[in-house]
Amino acid sequence: MARQQVRQQALRGRKRVSAESGAVAAEVVLNAAVEMFAAQGFHGTSMRDIAARAGTSVSHAYYYFPSKTHILVGIMTRVTEDLIAALLAARGSTVDKPAMRLAAIVRAHVRFHIERQAESFVGNSELRSLGPEDRARVVALRDRVSRIFKEVIATGFATGVFRGVHQPEATRAIISMCTAVAGWYRPNGPDRPETIENRYADLALQILGYRHDD
Amino acid sequence: MARQQVRQQALRGRKRVSAESGAVAAEVVLNAAVEMFAAQGFHGTSMRDIAARAGTSVSHAYYYFPSKTHILVGIMTRVTEDLIAALLAARGSTVDKPAMRLAAIVRAHVRFHIERQAESFVGNSELRSLGPEDRARVVALRDRVSRIFKEVIATGFATGVFRGVHQPEATRAIISMCTAVAGWYRPNGPDRPETIENRYADLALQILGYRHDD
Repeated sequence: MARQQVRQQALRGRKRVSAESGAVAAEVVLNAAVEMFAAQGFHGTSMRDIAARAGTSVSHAYYYFPSKTHILVGIMTRVTEDLIAALLAARGSTVDKPAMRLAAIVRAHVRFHIERQAESFVGNSELRSLGPEDRARVVALRDRVSRIFKEVIATGFATGVFRGVHQPEATRAIISMCTAVAGWYRPNGPDRPETIENRYADLALQILGYRHDD
Repeated sequence: MARQQVRQQALRGRKRVSAESGAVAAEVVLNAAVEMFAAQGFHGTSMRDIAARAGTSVSHAYYYFPSKTHILVGIMTRVTEDLIAALLAARGSTVDKPAMRLAAIVRAHVRFHIERQAESFVGNSELRSLGPEDRARVVALRDRVSRIFKEVIATGFATGVFRGVHQPEATRAIISMCTAVAGWYRPNGPDRPETIENRYADLALQILGYRHDD
């Protein structure tokens, strides 16, 4: 991605973080690091690489993040918190029926992984690079993602509209197949994001034994 | 993994490759590289790291593999060929009924990803590190994995025992959810591999609208 695009992307993200320019600069560093980690991995990337990609100095990058690990934690925290926000918004956008809610969060999860492929890749491939404490924090945040799915699915089982086998494993399988979209989706592929989202909503409902006459 | 274990693992693999000690030595290098790439990534690992882990010299490692890229291609080729062999063996082990065959290949795919987690991780995270030609070769090999699933599923649709929506997407979703097991399985987790395999076979059949009275 060209430096100009990185800056524009950070500017678009400004409202989400803060109106201060410091927050924008920190976002520019995070976005540059996402690209570098996605291309070369955490261990294959130096602070110098990240600063160069961000169009800034190494000391400026260190001003915002005391270490490369802090940048990785920042990437993982940001992407997971944004995913949680997207799922909660989707869940709240439908009437309180498990099938509607599940379809909504599946569509949101797939859309998110289509839109944020590089961050998803870094999030899934570099958990190994965190120490025990940071890792535990990120895993706890991810557990909140799982919990959103679990709760909607549990309600569907409780009310009898979902009747598939292996409820916890089905939940994990649904999250896995929707997350995997980040690995294969290509913008120049044959299907539009909406089409893919809708298919995954149908497939998830099918795993859960949902019948459309329910 | 201790060096002794690496050697034992290579010795166990001897029959698969060749009876010659050169093949064993090459396997020892490959296995050491799997561990290093899984821990630090391809770009974060040097030939020196790999040789040290394999308990050999850098020149000896270069004797078997002209470059680090050759090692990565070797890892990806070996793991994918072994997966294909496991799937074909599973497919051939049942009567010629799509539901039986699908259950068999799903179980084999899950088992393989439980047993070879590190190689699966490297295979999925380091495709980025291959040049266009090597990448195309590995992708072509992986397409053979997909094709095994596609053919069994297509037969089930043709004979009417599978009736789910979105046949190609369902195929990809099934492969994705079974592959994802490599990412979360822990040997000290609550479920035995057999239990997990059987659940994924049930879930795959459920995605495909299979009814056990068929």
